[in-house]
Amino acid sequence: MADPSTCSPLTRASVVAAHAAIAPHIHRTPIATSTTLSTFASTPQTREQLEGTEDDAAGAQPAAPHMRLFFKCENQQRVGAFKARGAFHALSRLSDEQLARGVVTHSSGNHAAALSLAARTRGVPAYIVMPSISTPSKIAATRGYGATIRFSGSTAPEREAVVRDVVAETGAVLVPPYDHPDIILGQGTLALEFEAQVADAVAAAPALSVRDAAKGLDAVIAPCGGGGMLSGVATALAGTGIRVFGAEPSFEGADDARRGLKQGRRIEAVKSLTIADGVRTPVGEIPWTVISDKTKVQDVFAVSEDEIKKALRLLMERMKVFVEPTAALGLAVALYNEEFRRLVEREAGEEGWNVGIVLSGGNTTMEAIGKLYAAPQTEAARAEGVVGINGERKAENVAG
Amino acid sequence: MADPSTCSPLTRASVVAAHAAIAPHIHRTPIATSTTLSTFASTPQTREQLEGTEDDAAGAQPAAPHMRLFFKCENQQRVGAFKARGAFHALSRLSDEQLARGVVTHSSGNHAAALSLAARTRGVPAYIVMPSISTPSKIAATRGYGATIRFSGSTAPEREAVVRDVVAETGAVLVPPYDHPDIILGQGTLALEFEAQVADAVAAAPALSVRDAAKGLDAVIAPCGGGGMLSGVATALAGTGIRVFGAEPSFEGADDARRGLKQGRRIEAVKSLTIADGVRTPVGEIPWTVISDKTKVQDVFAVSEDEIKKALRLLMERMKVFVEPTAALGLAVALYNEEFRRLVEREAGEEGWNVGIVLSGGNTTMEAIGKLYAAPQTEAARAEGVVGINGERKAENVAG
Repeated sequence: MADPSTCSPLTRASVVAAHAAIAPHIHRTPIATSTTLSTFASTPQTREQLEGTEDDAAGAQPAAPHMRLFFKCENQQRVGAFKARGAFHALSRLSDEQLARGVVTHSSGNHAAALSLAARTRGVPAYIVMPSISTPSKIAATRGYGATIRFSGSTAPEREAVVRDVVAETGAVLVPPYDHPDIILGQGTLALEFEAQVADAVAAAPALSVRDAAKGLDAVIAPCGGGGMLSGVATALAGTGIRVFGAEPSFEGADDARRGLKQGRRIEAVKSLTIADGVRTPVGEIPWTVISDKTKVQDVFAVSEDEIKKALRLLMERMKVFVEPTAALGLAVALYNEEFRRLVEREAGEEGWNVGIVLSGGNTTMEAIGKLYAAPQTEAARAEGVVGINGERKAENVAG
Repeated sequence: MADPSTCSPLTRASVVAAHAAIAPHIHRTPIATSTTLSTFASTPQTREQLEGTEDDAAGAQPAAPHMRLFFKCENQQRVGAFKARGAFHALSRLSDEQLARGVVTHSSGNHAAALSLAARTRGVPAYIVMPSISTPSKIAATRGYGATIRFSGSTAPEREAVVRDVVAETGAVLVPPYDHPDIILGQGTLALEFEAQVADAVAAAPALSVRDAAKGLDAVIAPCGGGGMLSGVATALAGTGIRVFGAEPSFEGADDARRGLKQGRRIEAVKSLTIADGVRTPVGEIPWTVISDKTKVQDVFAVSEDEIKKALRLLMERMKVFVEPTAALGLAVALYNEEFRRLVEREAGEEGWNVGIVLSGGNTTMEAIGKLYAAPQTEAARAEGVVGINGERKAENVAG
């Protein structure tokens, strides 16, 4: 791709230009609201919910914020995730000569599908380097978009080595999943739509807001993995007065952005198997320049695996939207993160905030949901090995 | 409720009146489309898909119909299912004196929640008789709407006995789940919206149809259990030229409407544990008067449990809508029922049909999905009893 130093600057104007470039290729995904979830968000957590948290230990009064929630349904985006935006934008910035050689990336999921779709749309080859342990549904989806898949080991060096081989063989251009201005600007386009759609919704139904109807969103919460989307959203909304927050899992140190902000330095490596598999990577260098800028991203909050699961259940069972675990991060922060909730109570007061939550994607499977919510006893039974009535060990059940 | 013989007649005009009565209380649910699923529906089935079917045995050429699919998202309706329509309409037809005494029903699910919501909205008591084996989520949802729950045994006579007790004690009015004209007219309101919404969508995007843009829907497929919704849809669309088809599971004889049409007489009892738990009941007497009228319901088709599961997976994983298994019946017919597909090929020709599919509801749970798609080996292990390493029988695992 273009040397980042010669790319468009990370400004709202660049996001507007990116949106114009990709609009013919992407869906303007709908926004959704839920009275039930807004009520939950505006109800103080119970002692039971706070159990085991720092707030519980401190015996603090639970926060009592007022929030009206709006959801940007990027699970309905092409390829089932916001990644289509960045991929189409990246390709729109390549020369014909570059395009002809094709594009390559290392990715285990949504970015791979997105780049494949964008390449096919432009009629150029896409080479996708995926760990051979990727889920079959993701491999099938990527192949379905007509890409050539090259398998690699799971570690970053192993994947990068295969990418280098592909570049050497074909001259394909590397399109990274998040650490590039063109990708960041592309992902940021969702925020332009979100801002306008909520303003329209509030204007059409003044009951949605107690304040100036034209105001729309007060804040947006976006998941943060490599940080391409969060930094894009923050770039798009810079100067609008709409606050931008990041959401991360706390599991096994996946809250690298939050920790990096505390220590004033980007954390370069993360090794977490959080269920929010879209955000297992550390923030990239270029996204970090935006995320570490307090005028653009106000703060980043972390939530537990259990909180992600509870939020995911509410999105599916109550809101009836089919989303992947990563998409539940924002709602989990709004419902369960006391630090965020106290901030809203303090800053928004009785008037409350219109909080926008990015539902980043919907690429999961029935089987993955089944595993996520399987009864713990069953898991334990599997872990210790399931044995048949006659005492014979049943390997196939252990694996199942 | 009112004696059925004094109710509004089962005509489109009555459905229009019902819609006006309930419009302030219900959602005008969105319609959804999916290029992928329309393409699947318009692609002949493979030999593998036909394996084990009558068509496979006959060595027939797979049907090659052309369909553009439109989905009516009643999973987004209040209480998560179309049942809110019938319940609000039934209450709108009661006198103040009747209302004051409250309403009662026997139901294990969506109708119970719907009646409870409608009663709460009118500020009157609702008594819900539920089998004590109902799923906890459905009990909790019903209780959440402020109803008084009375538990009963699972058989119809046991439930009806408890209903009689409630009526004797309180004077509450029985609102049955489907076998009443007011319920039928209420459920039919979804078809009026569907017809108008698809006509609007086709007019706005002529590519959705190769024909006269104003025409909109050519056919609707609706699930059929007690038949309240199917007969309501057929009543609403009578005389419009839009064909109406029913969809049933074939498992354990749940295709009672289809079989009844063949033998020319309503089947009065069904005992099926199909995964499409919203349609385990036989068609009621009053719905049957509509469903057995060929000018109103053209035909009813049945699908296997496996076909329902495949369609459900596509709705969730590809379309990203969260629905219950019953809601997948219509898509299963469109994708997998060769009899229906041959009919479309024959009648619609190259031009194809705009086929409307009613997504009836979205009330299921993560755990239910997990069980539905659990590996068969695991199921087998559970059925035969799971035994620990030391040979001790583990009751909690068998139950889990």
